[in-house]
Amino acid sequence: MKLTFSPASPFARKVRIAAIELGLIDQIEFVPAAVTPGQPNDEYSRLTPLKKLPVLILDNGDVILDSYVIVEYLDELAGGGKLIPASGPSRWKVKTEHSMLQGMLDSMLLCRYEALVRPEALRWKAWSDDHWNRAWTGMARFAQQADLLSRPFDVAAIGLVCVLGYADFRFADCGWRKAYPTLDAFYQKMQERESVRVSAA
Amino acid sequence: MKLTFSPASPFARKVRIAAIELGLIDQIEFVPAAVTPGQPNDEYSRLTPLKKLPVLILDNGDVILDSYVIVEYLDELAGGGKLIPASGPSRWKVKTEHSMLQGMLDSMLLCRYEALVRPEALRWKAWSDDHWNRAWTGMARFAQQADLLSRPFDVAAIGLVCVLGYADFRFADCGWRKAYPTLDAFYQKMQERESVRVSAA
Repeated sequence: MKLTFSPASPFARKVRIAAIELGLIDQIEFVPAAVTPGQPNDEYSRLTPLKKLPVLILDNGDVILDSYVIVEYLDELAGGGKLIPASGPSRWKVKTEHSMLQGMLDSMLLCRYEALVRPEALRWKAWSDDHWNRAWTGMARFAQQADLLSRPFDVAAIGLVCVLGYADFRFADCGWRKAYPTLDAFYQKMQERESVRVSAA
Repeated sequence: MKLTFSPASPFARKVRIAAIELGLIDQIEFVPAAVTPGQPNDEYSRLTPLKKLPVLILDNGDVILDSYVIVEYLDELAGGGKLIPASGPSRWKVKTEHSMLQGMLDSMLLCRYEALVRPEALRWKAWSDDHWNRAWTGMARFAQQADLLSRPFDVAAIGLVCVLGYADFRFADCGWRKAYPTLDAFYQKMQERESVRVSAA
């Protein structure tokens, strides 16, 4: 299998962490790719019209996206129910948490594009503020979850690692550690995992 | 169950079509909601920090998002394997197609926000062109799928209906019917389904 990859992509990081945790990392060849809004990349667009990282390319040529579906696929390949609960209320809780974290990452990327890719004269503060607020109040919600430090490592925990790591990487001054000490404790504990350490941007 | 809803939201339409197809529509109370980037909606943000439609609120108060996870939940509630194949290669094909269509809708919404919500002086054509190109080349890809008209009705077909309906609703002059006759034929055939007809914006 091949995975299109950039070390700066929090979505690619999610898949990388999952692949390490599932023992599948040696079966995946990482293929460097770069995509920037406003800049064409015709070769990549032939792979996926969404022009987003990552996609998984199976040995038979089939393409799987997006990052969440790739994690689901790898989880099934590893036997199922490892990173996503196979049934019951916890299944929908973890999936919902992951969707929330995915949306927070989407909003953080929109903030990043607004601040660095869009020409300076065309930036709109209300847009950035709105999307940053989604990520920030999302963090507040996860910070209030008492089970954060004791729960099994799953795709929602991976998503939270990717959100906080991306905050460190691209919004270093946002002050999330001071604002959310429980998230800081969570992130520090997660550093014990090799998958988290080696995948940091 | 309650579903936050706007008739203009293609993501809410996806869930509505799925609920009708699965025979669950009578169990869902639709709760009108409005979310606009750049405009706060504190009440809705308490429901989901992402400030996006739709979310499903279960009778016990649990919240499920995003639209895809809601469809998965409803599909399981209806017995499983109805709109999303339960196993095998078709499962990953349908999931990948849905992710692609979901991303196309995301890009179409970004175009819409750029053209109508963002102050005119701050619009960036390269951004809109890039995102429109993702939706447009995505349509081209689906137009080339020979099985489009014969396949079982699933979450990917629902996603395609929502993309094409949203193109009609918000980008009426884009010319997708002329550019993609196979998609036009698909969309016309889909009008035979009550779920598609009653949910049109």
